[in-house]
Amino acid sequence: MSQPPISRFPVPDLAALPDDIRARIDAVQEKAGFIPNVFLTLAHRPDEFRAFFAYHDALMLKDGNLSQGEREMIVVATSSANQCLYCVVAHGALVRIYEKQPLLADQVAVNYLKADLTERQKAILAYAMKVCERSHEVCDEDYATLRRYGLNDEDIWDIASITAFFGMSNRIANAISMRPNDEFFLMGRMPRIR
Amino acid sequence: MSQPPISRFPVPDLAALPDDIRARIDAVQEKAGFIPNVFLTLAHRPDEFRAFFAYHDALMLKDGNLSQGEREMIVVATSSANQCLYCVVAHGALVRIYEKQPLLADQVAVNYLKADLTERQKAILAYAMKVCERSHEVCDEDYATLRRYGLNDEDIWDIASITAFFGMSNRIANAISMRPNDEFFLMGRMPRIR
Amino acid sequence: MSQPPISRFPVPDLAALPDDIRARIDAVQEKAGFIPNVFLTLAHRPDEFRAFFAYHDALMLKDGNLSQGEREMIVVATSSANQCLYCVVAHGALVRIYEKQPLLADQVAVNYLKADLTERQKAILAYAMKVCERSHEVCDEDYATLRRYGLNDEDIWDIASITAFFGMSNRIANAISMRPNDEFFLMGRMPRIR
Amino acid sequence: MSQPPISRFPVPDLAALPDDIRARIDAVQEKAGFIPNVFLTLAHRPDEFRAFFAYHDALMLKDGNLSQGEREMIVVATSSANQCLYCVVAHGALVRIYEKQPLLADQVAVNYLKADLTERQKAILAYAMKVCERSHEVCDEDYATLRRYGLNDEDIWDIASITAFFGMSNRIANAISMRPNDEFFLMGRMPRIR
Amino acid sequence: MSQPPISRFPVPDLAALPDDIRARIDAVQEKAGFIPNVFLTLAHRPDEFRAFFAYHDALMLKDGNLSQGEREMIVVATSSANQCLYCVVAHGALVRIYEKQPLLADQVAVNYLKADLTERQKAILAYAMKVCERSHEVCDEDYATLRRYGLNDEDIWDIASITAFFGMSNRIANAISMRPNDEFFLMGRMPRIR
Amino acid sequence: MSQPPISRFPVPDLAALPDDIRARIDAVQEKAGFIPNVFLTLAHRPDEFRAFFAYHDALMLKDGNLSQGEREMIVVATSSANQCLYCVVAHGALVRIYEKQPLLADQVAVNYLKADLTERQKAILAYAMKVCERSHEVCDEDYATLRRYGLNDEDIWDIASITAFFGMSNRIANAISMRPNDEFFLMGRMPRIR
Repeated sequence: MSQPPISRFPVPDLAALPDDIRARIDAVQEKAGFIPNVFLTLAHRPDEFRAFFAYHDALMLKDGNLSQGEREMIVVATSSANQCLYCVVAHGALVRIYEKQPLLADQVAVNYLKADLTERQKAILAYAMKVCERSHEVCDEDYATLRRYGLNDEDIWDIASITAFFGMSNRIANAISMRPNDEFFLMGRMPRIR
Repeated sequence: MSQPPISRFPVPDLAALPDDIRARIDAVQEKAGFIPNVFLTLAHRPDEFRAFFAYHDALMLKDGNLSQGEREMIVVATSSANQCLYCVVAHGALVRIYEKQPLLADQVAVNYLKADLTERQKAILAYAMKVCERSHEVCDEDYATLRRYGLNDEDIWDIASITAFFGMSNRIANAISMRPNDEFFLMGRMPRIR
Repeated sequence: MSQPPISRFPVPDLAALPDDIRARIDAVQEKAGFIPNVFLTLAHRPDEFRAFFAYHDALMLKDGNLSQGEREMIVVATSSANQCLYCVVAHGALVRIYEKQPLLADQVAVNYLKADLTERQKAILAYAMKVCERSHEVCDEDYATLRRYGLNDEDIWDIASITAFFGMSNRIANAISMRPNDEFFLMGRMPRIR
Repeated sequence: MSQPPISRFPVPDLAALPDDIRARIDAVQEKAGFIPNVFLTLAHRPDEFRAFFAYHDALMLKDGNLSQGEREMIVVATSSANQCLYCVVAHGALVRIYEKQPLLADQVAVNYLKADLTERQKAILAYAMKVCERSHEVCDEDYATLRRYGLNDEDIWDIASITAFFGMSNRIANAISMRPNDEFFLMGRMPRIR
Repeated sequence: MSQPPISRFPVPDLAALPDDIRARIDAVQEKAGFIPNVFLTLAHRPDEFRAFFAYHDALMLKDGNLSQGEREMIVVATSSANQCLYCVVAHGALVRIYEKQPLLADQVAVNYLKADLTERQKAILAYAMKVCERSHEVCDEDYATLRRYGLNDEDIWDIASITAFFGMSNRIANAISMRPNDEFFLMGRMPRIR
Repeated sequence: MSQPPISRFPVPDLAALPDDIRARIDAVQEKAGFIPNVFLTLAHRPDEFRAFFAYHDALMLKDGNLSQGEREMIVVATSSANQCLYCVVAHGALVRIYEKQPLLADQVAVNYLKADLTERQKAILAYAMKVCERSHEVCDEDYATLRRYGLNDEDIWDIASITAFFGMSNRIANAISMRPNDEFFLMGRMPRIR
């Protein structure tokens, strides 16, 4: 079977992209060794591209009590609930790399309740799943539970916003049939020999 | 009963906000006559505020075959499915104003299938609901159906992205208990005397 | 768009109705200033009309610890869960009028958990939603919870029966495409100037 | 295990009931040989009792293209979906008796799609299940389908209203823990020797 | 209506079956007085027949704190949740016979929460329903709850495995349209005169 | 975090196992290079172990129009729907190996509709998902659809039974917290260098 396209929509020629977008893509390519398809497919809409990655960076690169690996776990759990192939695969790679734990991403994707996580991390994902699936029921008790695990209100905002942002990303990726790069599937699976 | 706060989080003092954010808030206040709470509550996180409204403008103020009123209908239907009080009420007001139709927002919020809409508009909302609730099932047939109503692929991207973006907005608003301004409830309900 | 009919079924001529039904309709018209469509559409079936309104009056006009406004809140929450346009709009008007609270009906329709309600009222609606969506799970604990809020068993019967009766009404209205009168949408929204 | 009460609420003394209610109960006892518990338990609320049975008779004893057995099948399918023990058992007995078919009620209660029914009867129950579970989606196509089986619009009203009425009955019975009479379980199971 | 076949697949001639399978069928026929259709329909696949009944016997004929009647209750509750006509009817007969309780099977099939069961039995069925519908959420607390009712871990394995095995049986029976024998419907309904 | 046990239940000592079970385990260890935990954990119940693997072999090692890789795809899709970590991971490895396709298992686990599959394979998985989630709705049309893809009735039995059998396996694995061997996660991910 020949490989299907990475998007239902046209993928712009790198050379034709606005400078700021091309610079961002060049930077990620240098770091990762390849261009993740989310950059190529969203570049079809430059203004949305800029807002998307500005939002992404504001949530994923900020300080707080959530580690980078924990932020990526939220993405994997949310994306699995929304059945988004791109995000489960791409952010699963990031979970493996940040956590230096080659099994964790698959565990979280299938059932975080059976994953090798701390109770604090399971509470984080339980709240993320509530925001993902029935955010209208979020209540004081949810905040109280997370505070008991040493998280503060800013962390709780982070969990909700990461869940909400990737819920958006999942729906867009599903709607345009965004395909994950083959490279992601294997990344971080052999941490000891990296 | 005394009125509850507009957010679980601190609402920043306008004077203390970065200039660009204050300028945006001043502009909306001048146009609307009041400051919608989404501006005040999201200003707690300036970087996320900027990305949020950049994304919003990219999707809601762009050209295409969807009218402004139709874009807002998508927001109301999505926000009702996600039970987000802020967005149903605030964007319901916009539906009434843009469409000059005082009954439409409530109809769409309860059951768009019984609303005074064209078949084309019902097809738009049917696709939005699919993206909202089971985006992993989006398929070629969905695109074909919408094309039969004169929509092109860019319009279909718009529908999916508006649905996805406000799905994010709904989850954040629910998680922080964002309260709609009282003004929204009555806006656009008496179009003849406006 | 021309306005669709108020029912999929023939709407009887007032003059041709049995005397008791016409008297009931005359009375409501005198009080409300217009004839709510539920009277006109159900008059297609006189025996069912009589039983329907007898049941309605037995539940909604009786004494007890539930105020008229609280009885109507139950109707709005139930009708929103069942996505019944007629009942959300018509009984939303009654919530606004009885409670002299112009925002409350929309709040309850979208998400009663975020509405300006007392804890006792939220407990009433939580029980109504359980009867609406999974009545087979009603148990002793539900009764105990409501008693803690000062409700007695007769009040609990009332909540369940109002929820059940309007669940019936919702299904009939949806099946026959009963359209709410335009008048309801605006009623009670400006209580101070009434 | 001693047998639990037939209702969470007081069951009135027959002698203390209003004359019209006692007359109705006497009549059913004479015909059935016992008093079905729905009469005793609802008599706790005389006005609701009267409205309930007036509505019941208007729907179940009327003319039309639905046989009595078919009306009772709708009740069994609806009551099974709502997990109402009283109505599945009591109306299952009526299905067996009217249809002179001792297996049919259990088949319909578990899965009407595998029951010994005609295609017309399956279409009736499919529409009833739609009204029961997602009445807001009822559309022209549902009416067209039923008309193809020789049903007219009055019959379609009957199906919807029977489904809706017993959806009410199911919720009340579940909420008050109405217990079916032991007699119902065996009625109509041996039709040949009746 | 002529009676439909007992399976979508060919039912093998008894004489043509392997000796061990025919011996098993002869034995059940001698005991029951008829051949339950599950034996005839699964004999279409001899290897699967052997594994199926070996598994069945390992779970249903073993020792432990669950009585035979309680094992069969689990089957009825699971099969009702999966809407499997064959298993609800056939194992309902076994519940009646083992428990010498003619009403119990119908009660459990409709709503075990309203059945004449002990609290211990309701806890068993609550766990079975969790394994049936959301086994990924099984947790330590489930084990702790059942231990409080005097069940040990081997009993808890039994409950889960019976639920899981009959969940398999339900799906196969539904997929091949396995029809229950008429005899099952009446068995055990008149225990006093047996 | 220290690694949790592979089961909530005791794992028997290999030396203490019955000869036939130990022989089966020795054989799989020789072939795979390690002992998959399903063998060790189910050996706690020898009779169930024997029936389980006899059933497994009857379904997975038989002839027919479904390839070994396709049988394993059904397992992965079913196990993902049931959120069973053991089966998604272990049978995902088998999909990669049989299909010589390192990306396919993750694709099927997240959303088979977006996986690199033929239309015939998607039809197989669509039927498996129907058997998994709503087997009571299986109908003639399902058989007709699969026949159009060149599958015969015996293949359709195979799909249903594999789905049903692994639905059982998923529930047992979830209930006893069966942990997948670390080895499975990486197997078949680099097919070219195997």
